Amino acid sequence: MLRRIDASVINDENEKLKSHLDADYAALADKLARDNIDIETITAKAGEFQVAVPSWGTGTGGTRFARFPGTGEPRNIWEKLEDCAVINEMSGCTDSVSPHFPWDVVSDFSELKEKADAYGLKWVSVNSNTFQDQKGQEYSYKYGSLSNTKKESRDLAIQHNLDVIEYGKQLGAKSLTVWVGDGSNHPGQSHFQRAFERYLASMEEVYKGLPDDWEMHIEHKMFEPAFYSTIIQDWGSNLLAAMHLGPKCKSLVDLGHHAPNTNIEMIVSRLIQFKKLGGFHFNDSKYGDDDLDSGSLHPYQQFLIFNELVDAEYRGQEGFGPAYMLDQSHNVTDPAESLINSAIEVQRSYVKALLVNREALYGYQEDNDALMASLELKNVFNLDISPILAMARYRKGAPINPLGVYRAAGYREGMAKQRPQDPNATGSGIV
Amino acid sequence: MLRRIDASVINDENEKLKSHLDADYAALADKLARDNIDIETITAKAGEFQVAVPSWGTGTGGTRFARFPGTGEPRNIWEKLEDCAVINEMSGCTDSVSPHFPWDVVSDFSELKEKADAYGLKWVSVNSNTFQDQKGQEYSYKYGSLSNTKKESRDLAIQHNLDVIEYGKQLGAKSLTVWVGDGSNHPGQSHFQRAFERYLASMEEVYKGLPDDWEMHIEHKMFEPAFYSTIIQDWGSNLLAAMHLGPKCKSLVDLGHHAPNTNIEMIVSRLIQFKKLGGFHFNDSKYGDDDLDSGSLHPYQQFLIFNELVDAEYRGQEGFGPAYMLDQSHNVTDPAESLINSAIEVQRSYVKALLVNREALYGYQEDNDALMASLELKNVFNLDISPILAMARYRKGAPINPLGVYRAAGYREGMAKQRPQDPNATGSGIV
Amino acid sequence: MLRRIDASVINDENEKLKSHLDADYAALADKLARDNIDIETITAKAGEFQVAVPSWGTGTGGTRFARFPGTGEPRNIWEKLEDCAVINEMSGCTDSVSPHFPWDVVSDFSELKEKADAYGLKWVSVNSNTFQDQKGQEYSYKYGSLSNTKKESRDLAIQHNLDVIEYGKQLGAKSLTVWVGDGSNHPGQSHFQRAFERYLASMEEVYKGLPDDWEMHIEHKMFEPAFYSTIIQDWGSNLLAAMHLGPKCKSLVDLGHHAPNTNIEMIVSRLIQFKKLGGFHFNDSKYGDDDLDSGSLHPYQQFLIFNELVDAEYRGQEGFGPAYMLDQSHNVTDPAESLINSAIEVQRSYVKALLVNREALYGYQEDNDALMASLELKNVFNLDISPILAMARYRKGAPINPLGVYRAAGYREGMAKQRPQDPNATGSGIV
Amino acid sequence: MLRRIDASVINDENEKLKSHLDADYAALADKLARDNIDIETITAKAGEFQVAVPSWGTGTGGTRFARFPGTGEPRNIWEKLEDCAVINEMSGCTDSVSPHFPWDVVSDFSELKEKADAYGLKWVSVNSNTFQDQKGQEYSYKYGSLSNTKKESRDLAIQHNLDVIEYGKQLGAKSLTVWVGDGSNHPGQSHFQRAFERYLASMEEVYKGLPDDWEMHIEHKMFEPAFYSTIIQDWGSNLLAAMHLGPKCKSLVDLGHHAPNTNIEMIVSRLIQFKKLGGFHFNDSKYGDDDLDSGSLHPYQQFLIFNELVDAEYRGQEGFGPAYMLDQSHNVTDPAESLINSAIEVQRSYVKALLVNREALYGYQEDNDALMASLELKNVFNLDISPILAMARYRKGAPINPLGVYRAAGYREGMAKQRPQDPNATGSGIV
Repeated sequence: MLRRIDASVINDENEKLKSHLDADYAALADKLARDNIDIETITAKAGEFQVAVPSWGTGTGGTRFARFPGTGEPRNIWEKLEDCAVINEMSGCTDSVSPHFPWDVVSDFSELKEKADAYGLKWVSVNSNTFQDQKGQEYSYKYGSLSNTKKESRDLAIQHNLDVIEYGKQLGAKSLTVWVGDGSNHPGQSHFQRAFERYLASMEEVYKGLPDDWEMHIEHKMFEPAFYSTIIQDWGSNLLAAMHLGPKCKSLVDLGHHAPNTNIEMIVSRLIQFKKLGGFHFNDSKYGDDDLDSGSLHPYQQFLIFNELVDAEYRGQEGFGPAYMLDQSHNVTDPAESLINSAIEVQRSYVKALLVNREALYGYQEDNDALMASLELKNVFNLDISPILAMARYRKGAPINPLGVYRAAGYREGMAKQRPQDPNATGSGIV
Repeated sequence: MLRRIDASVINDENEKLKSHLDADYAALADKLARDNIDIETITAKAGEFQVAVPSWGTGTGGTRFARFPGTGEPRNIWEKLEDCAVINEMSGCTDSVSPHFPWDVVSDFSELKEKADAYGLKWVSVNSNTFQDQKGQEYSYKYGSLSNTKKESRDLAIQHNLDVIEYGKQLGAKSLTVWVGDGSNHPGQSHFQRAFERYLASMEEVYKGLPDDWEMHIEHKMFEPAFYSTIIQDWGSNLLAAMHLGPKCKSLVDLGHHAPNTNIEMIVSRLIQFKKLGGFHFNDSKYGDDDLDSGSLHPYQQFLIFNELVDAEYRGQEGFGPAYMLDQSHNVTDPAESLINSAIEVQRSYVKALLVNREALYGYQEDNDALMASLELKNVFNLDISPILAMARYRKGAPINPLGVYRAAGYREGMAKQRPQDPNATGSGIV
Repeated sequence: MLRRIDASVINDENEKLKSHLDADYAALADKLARDNIDIETITAKAGEFQVAVPSWGTGTGGTRFARFPGTGEPRNIWEKLEDCAVINEMSGCTDSVSPHFPWDVVSDFSELKEKADAYGLKWVSVNSNTFQDQKGQEYSYKYGSLSNTKKESRDLAIQHNLDVIEYGKQLGAKSLTVWVGDGSNHPGQSHFQRAFERYLASMEEVYKGLPDDWEMHIEHKMFEPAFYSTIIQDWGSNLLAAMHLGPKCKSLVDLGHHAPNTNIEMIVSRLIQFKKLGGFHFNDSKYGDDDLDSGSLHPYQQFLIFNELVDAEYRGQEGFGPAYMLDQSHNVTDPAESLINSAIEVQRSYVKALLVNREALYGYQEDNDALMASLELKNVFNLDISPILAMARYRKGAPINPLGVYRAAGYREGMAKQRPQDPNATGSGIV
Repeated sequence: MLRRIDASVINDENEKLKSHLDADYAALADKLARDNIDIETITAKAGEFQVAVPSWGTGTGGTRFARFPGTGEPRNIWEKLEDCAVINEMSGCTDSVSPHFPWDVVSDFSELKEKADAYGLKWVSVNSNTFQDQKGQEYSYKYGSLSNTKKESRDLAIQHNLDVIEYGKQLGAKSLTVWVGDGSNHPGQSHFQRAFERYLASMEEVYKGLPDDWEMHIEHKMFEPAFYSTIIQDWGSNLLAAMHLGPKCKSLVDLGHHAPNTNIEMIVSRLIQFKKLGGFHFNDSKYGDDDLDSGSLHPYQQFLIFNELVDAEYRGQEGFGPAYMLDQSHNVTDPAESLINSAIEVQRSYVKALLVNREALYGYQEDNDALMASLELKNVFNLDISPILAMARYRKGAPINPLGVYRAAGYREGMAKQRPQDPNATGSGIV
């Protein structure tokens, strides 16, 4: 398999850390064994866990005020793919990439697929972009895309989504994620019902183009870029659309797209119950759609979400099988470092959720023993399961200390030389 | 018709104000005529508008910290009914009362109905109470009612709702409003899906007991009394439950039960579109379920909600016909004064919404003329339509200046003498 | 005086509307006279009211996702000034412009001042920009400006602010507004106390450069572009900094920069009381720093803020005299139209606040007559004072119907021809 | 020392768990030693950590809707003290009690102090109550206490606070905590500035009565029981009041009293920097002042707050020494169980914060290495330091497994027999 960072760098570093890992792993194994948990079963499951990386996440993000570029940023999908390969080599749990079109359009998708194959990477959910106008675009999305009052703009957006499905087919993807920026900034600007009717009619056209073995995932977002209303503002509208469109359409939950104080894990449970949970965009946020690193602010919330997911798996909930993806904006860090670390933090939540004694929990719930029920979750959360994650990586040839190896390898410095940036680019944003 | 405040008091006050009202009304008529609006049509519609009063709203409210009683408060449903009569005499737009059980249970409902009839008051949506334990109650609602893990508590809650339907039949009501305090305070305390399944199963039993010409309205609430999760936390869960239960079940929107920043008027539109808008609990709030006086903080939001309602009416939206009710907690005012004033503020929003030139608005929306669309609403909102409201009252014998007449009549002072309060009651709340 | 839209266009339109205005004005005068309010006094005050326009507000705004340019946008400060002139001609209440540097740097400020003088426009508070890197900038603001850990970046930011003061002197401005994007995206990234100490030390240097008759206004902002912490996150930190720096430093309140549910009018009162209210950035928001049109969503909140301002004036509060400015982002409207309309909406709030009977209000407050106190404000808010605003404009030669005249004049269409836009610009934002 | 739960029960349970604790402790010691951390130093500090228990927290809480009492609840301060003793025996880190007056007034405070001494408990910050009217109270607090427009109500509130200081002197307390429910429910009801002036004048009188070696702590709260404005709504007003009153007056931070999304740890830093951090009321919340168990929802936020506290200690910040107290409302759990567990969760945050390598963190901050800085905190948070907490308890004779011992001892069941509750009490709340 093609590699971006030499295995020897990893191995050298791993050798230095292995004895400590063994000690920590053995201690944890003993501890878990007291609760009749076999650490090897958990480590095996940790090793199987994967979360996808978005191609666009490998570049430095920005805000409407400014973008401060990093060094050695990828300039196209080929270089983004290179970075995704590194992220997977380091994290050991990101074996797939989610592309965004038209940003990632290439003339020969088979070449792109081959390149990914060589790195051991798969292509997953394809994303359409109707929240920007492309150069020379005949009809604008300024006032909406799939829900625009003008048929021409709607048709353009529908066709783009159908095109994206075609790109995805060539890459071997099996799902389309649809997020639109449609909405309004003024009361009265948009007729809520008519706009939603137009949206649904357009989505019906896209749905028709969906292969039988594909899914379509709708993403809701409370605000931004529209600031008074958005067409799919919350899981309620999302669910209505997904039910209207049919069984291949499901809802996608982005952790940063909710109203303040929202109990997201409960929404996840409802979507599971009604067979409409399509997938996740993992990130963290404090104020809005901040797109911060997953679990960097609310690790317990992330764990509680995985508690719902693992519980559904445990109960054999019908129709359950969401897609996991990171979706972050990295404004002040090396995007590769953030993605490596975030993937592992998501994996950490998953592994902790596996350790919950579900039968004991059900018993506490049945007995309304609120404190013990809460401690069944909290005690697991308080465990340090890092040795399991490290061992899972070690066993597949990934680093015990991923960021240490990444930095030791000097990857970004190398890219800074190989990928000269546009000298005319400024850090000015949109104001 | 039986009256609580003598008509002569009203007439005397009205005479003093009539010439000014005539002048203001004429000026407004001229102004509206320029836009081809016939003021008489609007005034007639204003006169037909009604919003129900909740029986419990006539007493002074409180918080978990304290309740500071007012003077002359009603001590039972008979006295609450008296106050509702006064409120209707003054406002001219609150001809119905919504009772709450078991608080308002009486031994002879026909007597209660007769009394209301005498006042010209109707009984509308009946409310059940399974968020408190009643003295001697065999099974507690501490850990839930309709969704309790224990069948005994669920059965009690189901039976109570069925009883409430029976009370309602005797009073001539046609709908049951169900709000429960069920939820959890700790992650893990409640299994979200199982709790919701139990809730739905219980509600199915209640639904079976619903007469064919009744509706059942489900009320969602983001938090309080449960502080981590509530069983029907938002319109998403509300809608799922209403769809599950059947066509007689609809969602009720309480303006104070949403997450911060939520676009409530959009939720109203969605519920209208999907034929699930059952009714409203009007109030206002700044921080949570504050139950402040309707429109006292966000009058434009209240107008925007009525803009959706009047638009649905204008378009002849199928299945549209929500019930309107005030639901406020009056901690620092005379409840009757707040209810009189709030009813008129709700009526004000309705009347303004009638003045919107909908065809012009549709044109701006179609053309994406955001500014003119927003001004079509804002310009109407900026109008002073008080003369229409006052004239509508005057024509039905209600006061031009309701609060002036109410105070001049010395109603509360009279009640303070007639209704001695429990001398042992303290202002202590629950801490 | 130099004009952008011919006076004859205004006069022609005004003639058509004058008789209706006279009728409405007379009716309102009668109504107010009943409460012993002389409409002429109010109209005179309305005519004196001014709110500044930000130079950058004349261009179409955008988000991190995209910017959809409008037609005929100004391409430099000269053209922005032209648009500001039009806005003032139409609104009759925006006689000053607030520039932003380095965006608005010109080689000869005296020429710029002359041009503004010719239009009858003044230059007010100058704004510095250390939230973006300029092309060729030696030290970056990526990790902060005035609070950067690196002295070189701090020095650059200090010098830039000193430069901006110099530009302002040449334009006749008397205040500097400082907003910085400094903050952090990760817990731990920034040492809160040390960063604030560096910020204060840098601001001391800027303060030293402030002429004696100038003020410095600090702007707080809860989030964006930093998403975990910002250096001046709220009025608490703002006040601490303003008190630390000295009497010439005051706090500026932007309506969109607060936590959800915040009672902004109360913050205004506190700043007035402690002599630290420097000024306002007016706009409206529903979710965050949305920068929507002033009063477009929460007109009553805007009125309540002016209620505090007029009350301070009425009481002769020492040290009171805040600067008023619009600060909006116009993503879907013609910026000139939004600014014209918003200026008038701000003026509307001011005029309504003048109508409050303050002595009556104080009496209700003293007596804890909560309902009558609230109605003293609400009844005034419910008045339609549009005739006062229109008459004030008419008397100074501005349009009775500003947007009607603006459109009739075909200003934007003319600019679309005169100001060809960069054909290579795309609508792509920063992602 | 007088005990509530026999030491033998603890010892028996500890013996069963000791060998596992030893193994876990040794493994953790090894792990920490790699980073040059001596576990014994940390364990000693953990053993010294104390957080106070509020007397009122030992009873079951409620909401305005209902209170569902638990069994065996304490009926007076003597029984509350008994429960506080148990909580301290189990947690090993709650050696002090904070009383609330007039609830906890007794005829002989020396007897109360002796009883506490016997249990090894100290009395800390005394709390006044002017948010409720007491039976027979001559002037009401319905419209405010220290800020009431009526001098009689203000004087009553001032005198009560002075009385509370006297009670505190007899108990050996050294601080007074002042929280008032003053505020308003309607715009206009209260004149913000005048109300604040009255509040400050009243507080000056209380301050005069404060002994020289005491502190006064002001508590802010965004809302409830007042729902439009509160007199000390946030840390800004809190700080202004504390600075106005003098050096003995400081601000108290309750974790549940902030606007949504507020960065509380940053407020803590600011208060430390300006020498005004008086203390904490620990609890957790999702929606408002939910008073949930400390760290039960946002354990990372609690850790980040302690990161600020330990950092201030590390830097030897002048004037630093806040008081720590739990302040929770236990509606669905045994209050003793919640308080035991919460005290340990607070201790957990403190101990984790001790493990941060501050010099390394400062280095990352200086270098703007955002990711490594964030990981310096997150990696420590991800550690399981339960063995340190358990060993610290074990060494002082407290249980390795506190809740296990508490339940095994059958304490609550015993109290249910000894403390018969009022049979006439109902679960009805205030509506």
